[in-house]
Amino acid sequence: MKVCDYREVEAQVAEEAEGVTVRWVISEADGAPHFSMRIFDVQPGHGSPLHSHWWEHEVFVLAGTGTVTMAGKSSPIKEGTVVFVPGDVEHQFVNEGDDVLRFICLIPHMWLEGVAEKHRPA
Amino acid sequence: MKVCDYREVEAQVAEEAEGVTVRWVISEADGAPHFSMRIFDVQPGHGSPLHSHWWEHEVFVLAGTGTVTMAGKSSPIKEGTVVFVPGDVEHQFVNEGDDVLRFICLIPHMWLEGVAEKHRPA
Repeated sequence: MKVCDYREVEAQVAEEAEGVTVRWVISEADGAPHFSMRIFDVQPGHGSPLHSHWWEHEVFVLAGTGTVTMAGKSSPIKEGTVVFVPGDVEHQFVNEGDDVLRFICLIPHMWLEGVAEKHRPA
Repeated sequence: MKVCDYREVEAQVAEEAEGVTVRWVISEADGAPHFSMRIFDVQPGHGSPLHSHWWEHEVFVLAGTGTVTMAGKSSPIKEGTVVFVPGDVEHQFVNEGDDVLRFICLIPHMWLEGVAEKHRPA
């Protein structure tokens, strides 16, 4: 069990993304069995690199404005935007505004790689 | 892939919880492989019943004020509160304020029942 304010969780410098910090607010360290919740703060003019990986993202934008690019197509994002990035789709989040771009981003735990293909009912 | 404003998703009356609506903003219908994102709106004086189930909740409060009760212990919640409810823990969310209590709540897909116990590396 855990109840906290997300601002109490340490904001760590994100790897390979200048101007970006991440708070792991719910993770395996809390006993979460399947997926983790992170809060990203992206400074104006910064963003994540264009990249892809096997796992999906489920995103909810809390504040700021920017752009999400998926599979070469860009869309504006702002407070209340929901983004689903499937696995293996090239994607990037960029802050195009003057304020911090803040979003929640959830990912499955790494042990789930390949599990759905093997164990999900057809 | 999906990009939308959560307000564009239909708010459905929640089962067994008067005064509560739910938007399934990312689900299996969108191709999400492991977990779903829902947005709950709870009217003042209402809430979820005290209940438990095998799956966990990962919650982020967007607006309003209220109380979460887990395993008999109550805590206040407001914008920015993060809650992790482990599986099989009795819990309840109640709106104690004068405005709508709105929170994001993520759950694993039902096919994951028992999978972690069998397939997660030790």
